[in-house]
Amino acid sequence: MSFPKNVKIVEVGPRDGLQNESTIIPTSIKVEFINLLSATGLSVIETTSFVSPKWIPALADQREVFQSIDKKPGVSYPVLVPNLKGFKHALEASVKEIAVFTTPSEQFSQRNTNCSIAESLDNITEVIAAAKKNYILVRGYLSCVLGCPFAGEISPQAVTDLAEKLIRLGCYEISLGDTIGVGTPGKTKVLLETILRKIPPEKLAVHFHDTYGQALVNIYVALEHDISVVDSAVSGLGGCPYANGATGNVATEDLIYMLNGLGINTGVDLKKLIAAGRFIANQLDKTSQSKVNVAYR
Amino acid sequence: MSFPKNVKIVEVGPRDGLQNESTIIPTSIKVEFINLLSATGLSVIETTSFVSPKWIPALADQREVFQSIDKKPGVSYPVLVPNLKGFKHALEASVKEIAVFTTPSEQFSQRNTNCSIAESLDNITEVIAAAKKNYILVRGYLSCVLGCPFAGEISPQAVTDLAEKLIRLGCYEISLGDTIGVGTPGKTKVLLETILRKIPPEKLAVHFHDTYGQALVNIYVALEHDISVVDSAVSGLGGCPYANGATGNVATEDLIYMLNGLGINTGVDLKKLIAAGRFIANQLDKTSQSKVNVAYR
Repeated sequence: MSFPKNVKIVEVGPRDGLQNESTIIPTSIKVEFINLLSATGLSVIETTSFVSPKWIPALADQREVFQSIDKKPGVSYPVLVPNLKGFKHALEASVKEIAVFTTPSEQFSQRNTNCSIAESLDNITEVIAAAKKNYILVRGYLSCVLGCPFAGEISPQAVTDLAEKLIRLGCYEISLGDTIGVGTPGKTKVLLETILRKIPPEKLAVHFHDTYGQALVNIYVALEHDISVVDSAVSGLGGCPYANGATGNVATEDLIYMLNGLGINTGVDLKKLIAAGRFIANQLDKTSQSKVNVAYR
Repeated sequence: MSFPKNVKIVEVGPRDGLQNESTIIPTSIKVEFINLLSATGLSVIETTSFVSPKWIPALADQREVFQSIDKKPGVSYPVLVPNLKGFKHALEASVKEIAVFTTPSEQFSQRNTNCSIAESLDNITEVIAAAKKNYILVRGYLSCVLGCPFAGEISPQAVTDLAEKLIRLGCYEISLGDTIGVGTPGKTKVLLETILRKIPPEKLAVHFHDTYGQALVNIYVALEHDISVVDSAVSGLGGCPYANGATGNVATEDLIYMLNGLGINTGVDLKKLIAAGRFIANQLDKTSQSKVNVAYR
């Protein structure tokens, strides 16, 4: 087995993390948090979501956050966009990169976004067309690729088919999301082997939640399959309203610790990252969900 | 890569776990805890340590605990033994299996047990000779095999040499302990590849602490190398006085969740295990360190 020499971390704490925390963080603190992350060497920081505040009140300050952060040269600050309306708001805020999302689970699509998978693809088609006109890069998320809280098992072929559709529509990369954290390494391997028959590893990222403690070992399996883009959230921020327990995304600190140990370059300064993780954990008045963050002195 | 079909879990919660918890648990609760573990399908439960109460007051009730638990047929209840005096007490209590310990780190040996590695081997030689006479099985632990809090790096060759010595002295199995949890999968792989040149996988077990969140991925690497005996503690009990942070052994629940997902048989009922983990976490008045335990409803 060989591993990628470099791994790109997509830090999703400010978006996927804070979106699912019960405490609402003031705008100025979010800006300070993202500026701290920008100083760590991360090259991608998903900043916020241009979703209706009715859906996600925690991110109602999306425009102000995006416009107030220091944009470090060489760092991407993508935002999540659920529909054309959100895209227009993102464009007005001078966003340069967006992410769209759907899921191979018909039931999850209905329960999470109140539309069918087909409708979500129509929606994404519209958004991508508008993005292309404005030279804006689009990343695609697939949720629940290793299991759905409503439908249970998800077929690797269904994930592959949907990922191919998103790439054909114009996504430059597909992030495979284990939204409820039920994946284990054998299942991850089967999914990746299936999808890699159709899509090269350079177009794939993995996005694991640590609900059952399996995120890091699943990422290890992804590295064994040449995947070199990994989503994570500092201090393990977040959760999922449909998943049990309190745990969110895999903690960026624990991921970097593993990658450092494997001699894989990320460009991220672990000490600065730990400081950013502690800052936001303190603001949320909770213990960091990163074991590295708790252990480091 | 193929995996073992069966994995034997050595549950070390009552010994390695409780020995390092700051709360001292009453004897009757320890007995109830071990009886709950016995009902889960576990085949090995390390019960206590016949060490001087001066060193480890938390386990001063060793004899009473060992004699009061229900011994389920087919389940082993080994105890840790630091020296001949401890062995004699264990023998008086009708123990059938013991574990001895040393470390490839001269500095850790001095700081942890106030003797050199050579002195610890003399000590172990005496204990094993006495054990053999009494038809008592002996397992060997090596601490700090992937790093020492005082010496730093530990050479895989030094671990291998010491493991070979313990086997020659009469240990039927060597448990490789990452006592301070600093191991990452690449380092684990190098250690195992070195040691497996001299010792077959049937004679090896792995023992990871989760201080930096790396335990499960390191165990996955061990499975890839045909190791089929894994030490763990329900609810992630324990810690190490020399390691940072609050985290202890890898949580048995999270390990079983991964092994179940891989289709590897352990004979352990996860629901009963979760119940035992919750019982002891409640007694310690702490949140279970097992993500599976927290997430399961």
